[in-house]
Amino acid sequence: MALSEFDLIAKYFAACGAPRADVLLGVGDDCALLHPPPKSLLALTTDTLVAGVHFAPGVDPESLGHKSLAVNLSDLAAMGAEPAWATLALTLPQADESWLEAFSRGLCQLAKTHGVRLIGGDTTRGPMSITIQAAGFVSPERVMRRSGAQPGDLIYVTGTLGDAGLALLARRGRHLPMALLPGIRRRLDWPTPRIAAGKALAGIASAAIDISDGLVGDLGHILEASGVGASLFLDLLPLGEAVADYVAATDDWSLPLAAGDDYELCLTLSADHQEQVEAIAQTLDCRLTWVGLIERAKGLRCVLPDGKRFDRLPNSYDHFRAGS
Amino acid sequence: MALSEFDLIAKYFAACGAPRADVLLGVGDDCALLHPPPKSLLALTTDTLVAGVHFAPGVDPESLGHKSLAVNLSDLAAMGAEPAWATLALTLPQADESWLEAFSRGLCQLAKTHGVRLIGGDTTRGPMSITIQAAGFVSPERVMRRSGAQPGDLIYVTGTLGDAGLALLARRGRHLPMALLPGIRRRLDWPTPRIAAGKALAGIASAAIDISDGLVGDLGHILEASGVGASLFLDLLPLGEAVADYVAATDDWSLPLAAGDDYELCLTLSADHQEQVEAIAQTLDCRLTWVGLIERAKGLRCVLPDGKRFDRLPNSYDHFRAGS
Repeated sequence: MALSEFDLIAKYFAACGAPRADVLLGVGDDCALLHPPPKSLLALTTDTLVAGVHFAPGVDPESLGHKSLAVNLSDLAAMGAEPAWATLALTLPQADESWLEAFSRGLCQLAKTHGVRLIGGDTTRGPMSITIQAAGFVSPERVMRRSGAQPGDLIYVTGTLGDAGLALLARRGRHLPMALLPGIRRRLDWPTPRIAAGKALAGIASAAIDISDGLVGDLGHILEASGVGASLFLDLLPLGEAVADYVAATDDWSLPLAAGDDYELCLTLSADHQEQVEAIAQTLDCRLTWVGLIERAKGLRCVLPDGKRFDRLPNSYDHFRAGS
Repeated sequence: MALSEFDLIAKYFAACGAPRADVLLGVGDDCALLHPPPKSLLALTTDTLVAGVHFAPGVDPESLGHKSLAVNLSDLAAMGAEPAWATLALTLPQADESWLEAFSRGLCQLAKTHGVRLIGGDTTRGPMSITIQAAGFVSPERVMRRSGAQPGDLIYVTGTLGDAGLALLARRGRHLPMALLPGIRRRLDWPTPRIAAGKALAGIASAAIDISDGLVGDLGHILEASGVGASLFLDLLPLGEAVADYVAATDDWSLPLAAGDDYELCLTLSADHQEQVEAIAQTLDCRLTWVGLIERAKGLRCVLPDGKRFDRLPNSYDHFRAGS
């Protein structure tokens, strides 16, 4: 028997994530009622994942639930915000209970990990699509925008770059050593929002963004918003073993430079903070790597290990650009 | 040439709705940054409209932009909240500029009317679907939940019932007098969120809900949440001319009782407030009509003009119920 809309919301999503004292009314009324903390800014973000565009229709629903929330938490991380609440707008061709059970497990587990409560949503019938909105708090003096980068600032990235892009290539048939496959697949399907890094560097970083569309494109947003340029040193880019092998074999830098879906952070900060940042890096569960410099001259320059300029800069992913 | 995702966001949505001092950062960063008022609750709601389910793919994009926001503002109205911010997650098969121009015109005009600022969103390529999240403020002592109805309370509804349902029947081929058609079409395509009524009755009403799925179903949510029952008097239901003609001709009460999409409010309040409410009704730009009584005995009883019970109660619309 098919579940009714109200039954399935109650069964899988009514008590999803961590209980929070600031949620006065969660799932089940016309609106959720929330009590934001008095002296913080509220950070709000929303992201949609569409079947056939952002994920294959047959993807593991548990990882999809995880990833749908992770990409939103990643935006909060990029502002230095502490995650708090999420809403879920879920469009499904039919109410498949085993799918819903696994999807909600993935979503609610990540929510719990980060102290997030699912406070509402909407379920509708239609082509599969997931829109999550996440809200968090950040104090005004700590918030990281895209527009604060200054000439002379150092550019850092968290984690490693290009893993998710390589996993996509592997899914499309590229041969990879078996031993490296599970690790990079996990990076594509179960991205880790860099909440701890974002919070630790908020108040120090001059600008930040999360890398959802590739380093070149996303750093480009910082450069544009800040009115500056940059040099990236390719030999400094943090690469996992599989991507390093790929670059060595192909001389193709498009994965670490332009593949999306890694959900690492790219941050800029004054060289005065370098020691402090290296100390913070020791406390994080991910790498934090210096990869370049913010410069007065507009544009982005990628410098090869031999000091030469790399000029085949790939474009970032853009959903509506002609031919994409 | 197709517009890029970033171009189209900037062109049509970057300055959408009313400017607000509480928006520190709107469209264009990883998150919007907002300053909620210190002593209010934050009311949050989200609704998705899917092409082929909630609207015909060829529907006028301007009315679709209006309606996408209106259904969310209606949820805020049902809590007695003052609307403030909205986000838009827009999935489109392609970036059609004339469609986007009209859609944003409808959305941004309604936003402006209600002092709402569009603060962020996401555009993706895929089957057409629109998810809006709206946020508003309401003071804790004025908020209207579904759970506060008490035996003896009077049941009121705003506006008229069944118009949108009749417009749908007309669109599917039912003959209607030409003179009445534009009015009911407008009710389906350009619903009016009852913000003023919600705010005027907040603090007086014991419970409220917006009628998106039909009066019987939505009043049913109040009854269930409040642990009470009710009688509805069918001869009191406020009907527009077209729906009154339809009911007289067919003896079919399903339009005013169970058709969705009217986005009127259903409220309950103590009889002690009746005089005050009648005075408030004079100040509103919509009808406010007494239609029934909250009772201790569970269940919903519909009473025909001759005093007999009407027992062919239609079910409300449910996206995932078997056979729907």
